[in-house]
Amino acid sequence: MRLAVDAMGGDNAPKSIIEGCEKALQTFKDLHIIFVGDEEKIRPHLKSTDRVEILHTEMVIDGEDSPVRAVRRKKDSSMVLTVQQVKEGKADAAVSAGNTGALMTAGLLIVGRTKGIERPALSPMLPTMAGEGFLLLDVGANMDAKPSHLVQYALMGEVYMRKVRGIEKPRIGLLNVGSEAGKGTDLTKHVFTQLQDSSMNFVGNVEARDLLNGVADVVVCDGFSGNLVLKSIEGTAMSLFSILKEELTSSLKNKLAAGVLKPSFKKVKQKMDYSEYGGAGLFGLRAPVIKAHGSSDAQAFFSAIRQAHTMHEEKVIETIEKNLQQLPKGEQE
Amino acid sequence: MRLAVDAMGGDNAPKSIIEGCEKALQTFKDLHIIFVGDEEKIRPHLKSTDRVEILHTEMVIDGEDSPVRAVRRKKDSSMVLTVQQVKEGKADAAVSAGNTGALMTAGLLIVGRTKGIERPALSPMLPTMAGEGFLLLDVGANMDAKPSHLVQYALMGEVYMRKVRGIEKPRIGLLNVGSEAGKGTDLTKHVFTQLQDSSMNFVGNVEARDLLNGVADVVVCDGFSGNLVLKSIEGTAMSLFSILKEELTSSLKNKLAAGVLKPSFKKVKQKMDYSEYGGAGLFGLRAPVIKAHGSSDAQAFFSAIRQAHTMHEEKVIETIEKNLQQLPKGEQE
Repeated sequence: MRLAVDAMGGDNAPKSIIEGCEKALQTFKDLHIIFVGDEEKIRPHLKSTDRVEILHTEMVIDGEDSPVRAVRRKKDSSMVLTVQQVKEGKADAAVSAGNTGALMTAGLLIVGRTKGIERPALSPMLPTMAGEGFLLLDVGANMDAKPSHLVQYALMGEVYMRKVRGIEKPRIGLLNVGSEAGKGTDLTKHVFTQLQDSSMNFVGNVEARDLLNGVADVVVCDGFSGNLVLKSIEGTAMSLFSILKEELTSSLKNKLAAGVLKPSFKKVKQKMDYSEYGGAGLFGLRAPVIKAHGSSDAQAFFSAIRQAHTMHEEKVIETIEKNLQQLPKGEQE
Repeated sequence: MRLAVDAMGGDNAPKSIIEGCEKALQTFKDLHIIFVGDEEKIRPHLKSTDRVEILHTEMVIDGEDSPVRAVRRKKDSSMVLTVQQVKEGKADAAVSAGNTGALMTAGLLIVGRTKGIERPALSPMLPTMAGEGFLLLDVGANMDAKPSHLVQYALMGEVYMRKVRGIEKPRIGLLNVGSEAGKGTDLTKHVFTQLQDSSMNFVGNVEARDLLNGVADVVVCDGFSGNLVLKSIEGTAMSLFSILKEELTSSLKNKLAAGVLKPSFKKVKQKMDYSEYGGAGLFGLRAPVIKAHGSSDAQAFFSAIRQAHTMHEEKVIETIEKNLQQLPKGEQE
């Protein structure tokens, strides 16, 4: 498999990116990596000489860039060139830890959509307390979604969880404000009916309160709602950890006791850490494009590569395309 | 002030409800309470003889009842009769810890809307790390909201935070997926423009991740989004506390250290506890109707009464009605 990697994206680029790639090269013997970025900055970190190449460019899209403008104007940026490798058939998949909005735009404009998919979805795995995690989509690729979009998200998520995470009959949940049928907005009411009519393992509405308890393997929603939920979970966890830290270091007695509990706190933090699951897939494109977390360390970036690798190996996109044709044509708003 | 109280609503009714009322009667010398519910169950807990009366009924709406049906059919239920007291002018405000959906329905159908308000909003105060809290509205009264609804929510929230919480120029934020203008859905784009044109202290888009850091005093959104955010915050906090508890009691060594830290953990939990702020106001009705949390203890129910009392004293509803007339007529979808 040939993978294009944006060597310059994310907070810890290029060092952690390249370290993650080195680990992937050791793990997957069929992997060939095209590093896209500043050769002078890449070389010092790169140990492998085999199955790697560097596509040199000095231009970078940063976190502050406006996504659409950046993709249109910075045609020689490491991110755009990374995605371009896929479009030109030089790579089977692309991974970047850079600007999320820009990667979504580049994926859509350059790689293009899978045949039959109306809108791609940004799809991260989120942690559950028991550890299996769940796939949430969409978290922001498509703001004003239609019922047919969410049904397609369910289908893409179903294939992903089955093929990549090995779940035989993934439970599909619809994010909603209550568990009874008939709850929510016009959108969710339409989607509920259509998912019920599909052959997927639809478990009904799921509430935001229960997500971390693992009520479903795939949770679908419009991109606006998904983004709010994702950021609410992140924000609450961060706030709690920060006030806990403040409290537990407020006296010597507390510090000593907290010291004993340090391994336990670490475990709890790890449970909330989703970098282990890989990045957020941009599902619905012609090839796997993975957004690794901006703060990815080597291990997190390795996970994102593993994800792209498994998606390629398991022919996730071909399966999505095939299954799409079996979806009943529901009423569409 | 005359207050109607649903003595039978909530997990701890009628005991905690009545205890909360007793405290309120001691605190507010102008307060007269009409307890609505089963006299035989109320009497044993009631100490006051002055400024109280009981309106006897044995019918109750429970958590399982379908809201609209319950309000229409259970006309003699404690909740419906409580709200009815306001409609008939026998009470100035109503408080219930019962079924949220039923109370919203009863409020809307029986008390009716403030003149000029298109849709009422369910409006809880949520905790912030620094402790001031913020008002989030709507969290579920109105699922498919229009721009004009959110602008009215902002206005209602502004008046509430100024009059009841004493904030001179409350900062109004629009819940969104990014802080820049132009982010989000068609809805948020329209609302952004209209809030910018208003005379309110609009601080722009606020992200779900930053809510607990106190980025705004009032945060407006459609009821679907608000409900997701509210429940994501609650669910994440509950999950974290539960795995923390599990970890910290997993060995004797941990238990001992955790024992030392118990007061600290309690403090952190209290920071996330919003019962101190009162209940969730059903804003936009002709009179204050307050939904106390279902698990309210006496202190939480007292806070909900204090909230109704201050709203009445500070003429919040009259002010909302007056300010509504000054709102520019923006473009409405």
